[in-house]
Amino acid sequence: MTKPNILVSNDDGIDAPGLQKLVAELKKFANVYVSAPFRQQSAVGHSITIFYPLRVHEYNKDGELFGIAVEGTPADAVKLGALWFYKDVKFDLIVSGINHGANTAINIIYSGTVSAATEGRILGIPSAAISLTTFEPNDFSDAALISASLLKQIIEHSKEIFAPNTLLNINIPAVPAADIKGVKITKQGKSYWDDSFEVRADPNGRDYYWLTGKMVITDKTNDNDIIAVRENYISISPLHYDLTDYSSYEKIKDINLKI
Amino acid sequence: MTKPNILVSNDDGIDAPGLQKLVAELKKFANVYVSAPFRQQSAVGHSITIFYPLRVHEYNKDGELFGIAVEGTPADAVKLGALWFYKDVKFDLIVSGINHGANTAINIIYSGTVSAATEGRILGIPSAAISLTTFEPNDFSDAALISASLLKQIIEHSKEIFAPNTLLNINIPAVPAADIKGVKITKQGKSYWDDSFEVRADPNGRDYYWLTGKMVITDKTNDNDIIAVRENYISISPLHYDLTDYSSYEKIKDINLKI
Repeated sequence: MTKPNILVSNDDGIDAPGLQKLVAELKKFANVYVSAPFRQQSAVGHSITIFYPLRVHEYNKDGELFGIAVEGTPADAVKLGALWFYKDVKFDLIVSGINHGANTAINIIYSGTVSAATEGRILGIPSAAISLTTFEPNDFSDAALISASLLKQIIEHSKEIFAPNTLLNINIPAVPAADIKGVKITKQGKSYWDDSFEVRADPNGRDYYWLTGKMVITDKTNDNDIIAVRENYISISPLHYDLTDYSSYEKIKDINLKI
Repeated sequence: MTKPNILVSNDDGIDAPGLQKLVAELKKFANVYVSAPFRQQSAVGHSITIFYPLRVHEYNKDGELFGIAVEGTPADAVKLGALWFYKDVKFDLIVSGINHGANTAINIIYSGTVSAATEGRILGIPSAAISLTTFEPNDFSDAALISASLLKQIIEHSKEIFAPNTLLNINIPAVPAADIKGVKITKQGKSYWDDSFEVRADPNGRDYYWLTGKMVITDKTNDNDIIAVRENYISISPLHYDLTDYSSYEKIKDINLKI
């Protein structure tokens, strides 16, 4: 069997250990190409850069070209990688990650990590986002090993797993590998942030505002991403980017609104 | 009946004519509050600002306080407006717009305009995004009149229209009011961009990349947003932010992946 071709991106930046450890593991069985943001891009959502041009740098590591660093968003990096720099490569998978921090429940819609995978899927390529569910320091070695093993199986089952507009959102619990209970296919949880703002004054007495908040856990069962990872399962959610609320569509499609 | 309370935001910035004309029309029947980005924020997707604090300016117009200008994204502006500056107001509706340019089909996922309405819905408030389907100069007078008329009806039918996580994405065709054929409830179209990049060299010979592309129209019927507006209907799509691909979930939930 020929080696699969994998494009790797992220939102933490090309020098993030989560990406670099993942690339090292993937190289053991795949041809790996990297196109990632030059700088940390968390919580950029699904942004693309249309009013400014994009600058691109070659990023070297250990004296070799490691990948393409894009001064833009995760979606920009995926587009530039797949459509320009590696346009002659037929990719079997686009992977975004490993993100430092969970992307579950409502957080998915703010996630640069997931947006890179979404962009990959929009371009017609099976895609997956991978996150490690901690903001604490972590060397990503275990997470990279687990990710590579899962992604290898996912590529093998690609036809079965990826419907035409489906991408995968994978969250790995940040616990010792021995404590992980298994893999659960899950749904996006409904848990949300109870947001507020903290106001501070700068040295000149002018106010500025920090977003702050607490996650409100409304999900109960481990067929939801956020509960699955809390119970030490690896969570894999099939996502899509059709935002139509079909049940509302059926309910209101004959409503009579006048101009 | 008491006047409804409406919060208005956008992604084109607080000084955009689309927002200002809309606010003037809404004030004829509602108490209107404005919290919008300080600067143009198009194609920011659903970003929030978490690594930097937010600065806020009072924005005056005709010698009066018009609203709050937030140095942040549309989602930031909605959060700050609803949770901080106008936190004592019980909003009946959050409106984002009128955007200068369509937000249909795949464009929805990149849209700052839609993200502001999504954020409103996440905060528990019925929300709608409104866009005028042209990038040509337009004085927004007709669009503002039509929008105000629609939004008044939408507030009246609020309970019927807004399921707990539903928002509306409204697109108004940029044609004379007399040519508009009516209102269609629609789905998000499947049409997409055939993207590419244009490479240019700066005066020092270094390359930079412009995203460029052509919309590929794959939708056929006017129950899709993009075709409805092309046929001169006002398009109203019910959207939600549950990204789970349920049909894939059912298909793959028993797949056996090993760690």
